[in-house]
Amino acid sequence: MPPDPSSIVCPVSTADAEVITLGHGGGGGLTRSLIEGMFLPAFADPALEARLDAGMVDLGDARLAFTTDTYVVSPPFFAGGDIGMLAVHGTVNDLAACAARPLFMSVGLILEEGFPMSSLRRVVESLAREAAAVGMRIVAGDTKVVERGKGDGIFVSASGIGLVQVDPRPGPDRIEEGDAILVSGDIGRHGVAVLATREGLAFETEIESDTAPLWDLVRALLDAGIELRCMRDPTRGGAATALVEIAEMAQCTIELDEPAVPVEPQVQGACELLGLDPLYVACEGRMLFVIPPGQASAALAGIRSHPLGRSGAVIGRVGERGTARVLMRSSIGSTRIIDLLSGEQLPRIC
Amino acid sequence: MPPDPSSIVCPVSTADAEVITLGHGGGGGLTRSLIEGMFLPAFADPALEARLDAGMVDLGDARLAFTTDTYVVSPPFFAGGDIGMLAVHGTVNDLAACAARPLFMSVGLILEEGFPMSSLRRVVESLAREAAAVGMRIVAGDTKVVERGKGDGIFVSASGIGLVQVDPRPGPDRIEEGDAILVSGDIGRHGVAVLATREGLAFETEIESDTAPLWDLVRALLDAGIELRCMRDPTRGGAATALVEIAEMAQCTIELDEPAVPVEPQVQGACELLGLDPLYVACEGRMLFVIPPGQASAALAGIRSHPLGRSGAVIGRVGERGTARVLMRSSIGSTRIIDLLSGEQLPRIC
Repeated sequence: MPPDPSSIVCPVSTADAEVITLGHGGGGGLTRSLIEGMFLPAFADPALEARLDAGMVDLGDARLAFTTDTYVVSPPFFAGGDIGMLAVHGTVNDLAACAARPLFMSVGLILEEGFPMSSLRRVVESLAREAAAVGMRIVAGDTKVVERGKGDGIFVSASGIGLVQVDPRPGPDRIEEGDAILVSGDIGRHGVAVLATREGLAFETEIESDTAPLWDLVRALLDAGIELRCMRDPTRGGAATALVEIAEMAQCTIELDEPAVPVEPQVQGACELLGLDPLYVACEGRMLFVIPPGQASAALAGIRSHPLGRSGAVIGRVGERGTARVLMRSSIGSTRIIDLLSGEQLPRIC
Repeated sequence: MPPDPSSIVCPVSTADAEVITLGHGGGGGLTRSLIEGMFLPAFADPALEARLDAGMVDLGDARLAFTTDTYVVSPPFFAGGDIGMLAVHGTVNDLAACAARPLFMSVGLILEEGFPMSSLRRVVESLAREAAAVGMRIVAGDTKVVERGKGDGIFVSASGIGLVQVDPRPGPDRIEEGDAILVSGDIGRHGVAVLATREGLAFETEIESDTAPLWDLVRALLDAGIELRCMRDPTRGGAATALVEIAEMAQCTIELDEPAVPVEPQVQGACELLGLDPLYVACEGRMLFVIPPGQASAALAGIRSHPLGRSGAVIGRVGERGTARVLMRSSIGSTRIIDLLSGEQLPRIC
């Protein structure tokens, strides 16, 4: 006789016995296991499955990009920026990576009891100033307060709506062999700046966050007729993680030229001191571009002529299709594979 | 000689010496002081200044409603619901209050290190199930993790985009003297259910949250040709706060008939035990309507014929314009003024 179905107890899966760790928020392998193992199957939506910086959806004749991020950066004020600037810039850059003009933004605040009103005012002023600077309207908001010890000063959630300006939209599916990979500027400054503020580290020269809104730079390239096949802003997990994700989604090899990757000497020095690889350190004002090879020079000129792209560079090319991997060729000709970090390199960097 | 400008130190204003208290998140007077004293002047946007449940913005020929809320309910699982259900229902109801069909939603999670993976799975399943039930797509997401002791299990931020179905849109500016005030069901259950779970209170009958998505109910009234002049979902601060806000925005008197306000006996009993006024206790599945007097009976019939409106009622009327106040007439004929609470009645109820 078969057993009574109600008497069957499913074994608890290993995954369900687990708890959340800091690594699940790091943007690397553990974050991906959450996304692929839980969120995508549950929400089952093509806009999510496309894994772009924003969800793209059609509404009438318009194609919208819709993005959300929560910001838990610690500390909320750091060299070169604050959590309010990050929230606006992160929203703008996620939309810009979808070639979408930023239109509307919402702001949710989770405040801890005892957070100074003067600090809140500074964050709100940053939000207002930075949004106005890119012509994005803040049209919805919410504020919650949690008891002392149940939060950490201030968390900000931000969502944005943009209008996609090109058809076909940019995305990894449009990448072709031979395409050039460009970055809009030197990498790793944001993560190092936050870490330095957090730990009270003093370097010879203060390293400031690169946080900046990149829509104007992206628009300049679109206006110049550059075909932006794919874009991604390298935040959590840095340029390495963003490029691995692109390679996996496009199922292609990406070949990077290590000496071409722009890293400021003081950032390089700080990373060596801290045991970090700048390729994995978050930027908040940089964009990665995949561009047809014939347009690489024009694109680089366009990037460098913009105030936010002075240190832009061509850093690699798309190799053969069929194998998803990122290869880094060093100045002495050796090659190493760049992979996702499995855990967390720098918690609470954004 | 005038003083050196750099030597002038501005006196710190009283407001800036203050810190955030739980009351600033309570939806009452302190929340309003933040909104009116800081957010509205800084963000200076007509969509915010309209003070509706969602910001309404035009995009091409479409009028969108855009809403955001963060959910910090404690505990995240309570009698009749969980934080995932709340996030979806709250989003749907804010859009429904603007007569907007819910289309797209984003979800941001702030998880505390150590939060059980099985609990996360339950929340994600709730989000997915409840969004699918109303045909709203989840198209963007984000996950952050904070260290143990820097959060409280799980916070959820949710934003939603809806398409406004009527023109002119509903709003307090459309209210006229003599209009009927209706509520879609008995009030106060959500707040009491959360509090009972939190404090481990056992009542004779378990009181379950009223959390529910009200778009289908609102659509039924629109389809029936009811003119929905103004709607508001009475969450934080309850029906009292929502009605005071309506009265202030419309600059009118609202006259409530106390015996007509539906409160379940066990909710009434629990409120008496706990020293709460059900009129100030949050609902998460109720809507307040302002409707032309000639349509009040038809609207009530429409509400009561919907599964989520069985206990709906006409609870009052709009009196003279020019004075913003809410008056409650008791069963013995006495009248009292209903005002905003200055502080926090029930922290972390949503």
